[in-house]
Amino acid sequence: MDFDGIRGLTGAINASLADFFERESHYLREIGSELDPVADVLGHFLLDSGKRLRPLFATIGFLGAGGELSPEIIKATSSLELVHVCALIHDDVMDASDTRRNAPAIHKQFEALHDSEHLHGSNSQFGVASAILLGDLALVWAAKALHESGAPSQNILRALPFYDEMRVELMAGQYLDMYEQALASESVERSLKVARFKSGKYSIERPLHFGASLAPEFSAQVIESYSNYGLPLGEAFQLRDDVIGVFGDPEKTGKPAGDDLREGKRTVLVATTLSKVNVIQRTEFLQLFGRKDLDLSQIETLRSIIVETGALAELETIIEEMTFKAHNALATGGITPSAVALLEEMAIAATQRTA
Amino acid sequence: MDFDGIRGLTGAINASLADFFERESHYLREIGSELDPVADVLGHFLLDSGKRLRPLFATIGFLGAGGELSPEIIKATSSLELVHVCALIHDDVMDASDTRRNAPAIHKQFEALHDSEHLHGSNSQFGVASAILLGDLALVWAAKALHESGAPSQNILRALPFYDEMRVELMAGQYLDMYEQALASESVERSLKVARFKSGKYSIERPLHFGASLAPEFSAQVIESYSNYGLPLGEAFQLRDDVIGVFGDPEKTGKPAGDDLREGKRTVLVATTLSKVNVIQRTEFLQLFGRKDLDLSQIETLRSIIVETGALAELETIIEEMTFKAHNALATGGITPSAVALLEEMAIAATQRTA
Repeated sequence: MDFDGIRGLTGAINASLADFFERESHYLREIGSELDPVADVLGHFLLDSGKRLRPLFATIGFLGAGGELSPEIIKATSSLELVHVCALIHDDVMDASDTRRNAPAIHKQFEALHDSEHLHGSNSQFGVASAILLGDLALVWAAKALHESGAPSQNILRALPFYDEMRVELMAGQYLDMYEQALASESVERSLKVARFKSGKYSIERPLHFGASLAPEFSAQVIESYSNYGLPLGEAFQLRDDVIGVFGDPEKTGKPAGDDLREGKRTVLVATTLSKVNVIQRTEFLQLFGRKDLDLSQIETLRSIIVETGALAELETIIEEMTFKAHNALATGGITPSAVALLEEMAIAATQRTA
Repeated sequence: MDFDGIRGLTGAINASLADFFERESHYLREIGSELDPVADVLGHFLLDSGKRLRPLFATIGFLGAGGELSPEIIKATSSLELVHVCALIHDDVMDASDTRRNAPAIHKQFEALHDSEHLHGSNSQFGVASAILLGDLALVWAAKALHESGAPSQNILRALPFYDEMRVELMAGQYLDMYEQALASESVERSLKVARFKSGKYSIERPLHFGASLAPEFSAQVIESYSNYGLPLGEAFQLRDDVIGVFGDPEKTGKPAGDDLREGKRTVLVATTLSKVNVIQRTEFLQLFGRKDLDLSQIETLRSIIVETGALAELETIIEEMTFKAHNALATGGITPSAVALLEEMAIAATQRTA
């Protein structure tokens, strides 16, 4: 199977997801037309956007272990996007976030359906319940996509432990993150631990391992190289997220300016800032941080403190160091040269992005 | 592996679940002590009670196809209980039910944790978010328990399509049920469709199929017999649930008297009643039905209407007919005699229970 770099792989992943969705949504609609909105909403959420980061890492993980790409393998690696759809849908309910990618979150879409169909009971309860079920369905679809991929069954069996590990770590990481927010923790160490679980392991290391385990054979050296690449890169990726959440351009991110500041999100960037502020800066920061009604000048005040304390510069330095570390891990060998080139490209994309 | 009837199988399933939980909770706690409450709460929910209906049907499904029982198979079939734990936890969030089995629902337990640890933000939001994650984790654990069961890998591979089908039908059935409630539908046909998905397929037919597919070999005849037994029995099971939800003894059910009437649950029993009422009964019924503050005399009024219209008697007749149909399906053959005896026992337990 030929493909043209990351862009070509992304196209193949998108096509595979569209194909899977076509079949599964048809089945849903046959159960009853009541399920049409479930299929429609999930379809848009899955297919309209998304960077396909985890399927890409899984596919490259497969190539790096010497696997020969096929449509069946793309089906198997694409399944990770459905796990992520579950995580995002449930995340929005958990955070009570009303928008995602410039569109209403799933629970808000079903709240609107409740209104337009004049259904009984609470519209927000209906919205939340629907979003829980759609997330659950995405998680089940993910497994189904993998099982039915047509990849050799022995390889699927070998991939399952990595797959399970990844999903347990995802749920554990989500709980840690939520608990961290509720603690209103100021610990840099603790926020780094969350970043490690949520991004290092779930988004990069495990998808690479999962991909490798789908290959006809893979060495312990490849698995280790993927960890050495994936964990620091995941950290850099998450720190870039922190920076974008504060300094990102709304036109690019699809979210309001300074969104994380309004939400009072306890990120590594915020923890680093709070570890460096003087008393006056601390008072000013904490008075504004987490207020839903922040105006642009207040956001600018918070941003200035983050810059003046040197927290932003410190994060940029760590991002650079971690990316460098990830690059070096690729040199230690075991990974096929074509996959090394793709992983270099992914590292740049993950850490130099603006959205 | 020897066992002594349903009771013996239930004991083996309980032991297997305890064993799995022991290992997995250890892993969770090692990630961080923040996850201790997740492990504790899930452990109690999983291990303190539960009839193990779905693992039992899966185990008997395996035996009926000629399989020889082993601890590995019990591990594989027990995994269905974890799927059900996910369904129950998410169901309580979706219904905003605050109690389950005489104890606070999971989201209420984490709400209380938020209070006792004086965490920041909304306690109910924290409770809901935790319950969503615990349900997700249970669903992932279910898959892990199956994958790691040690059952022959070819048999596991063969069981996966049945497993996936069951989980998709569960989520679809849950949505249908919720939508039906929100429609405040009075259609007997529609409420029967929900009952068919939620109980017939998810609780009985699919677990039997799943169990059969774990056996070294299974015939199309066994699969068909299981459908012919499982679908009517599932319907009878659900109708019994409807009756208990209205007439059940609180001491036995662990729920307040007439709970379904307070909740305004659109069951087959309610739809049948509404198809039989006269104008006066209809007005009286709809004035009271679904009111959270119903007192015992009002519950008695609703119960009388259900009895007087003949709806209760009609349901009892259908339960009897469906159970009879299920029994007859066992006679058509293909199922081993010892499994037939167990399925007879299960049919009685499922339809003659009082809680």
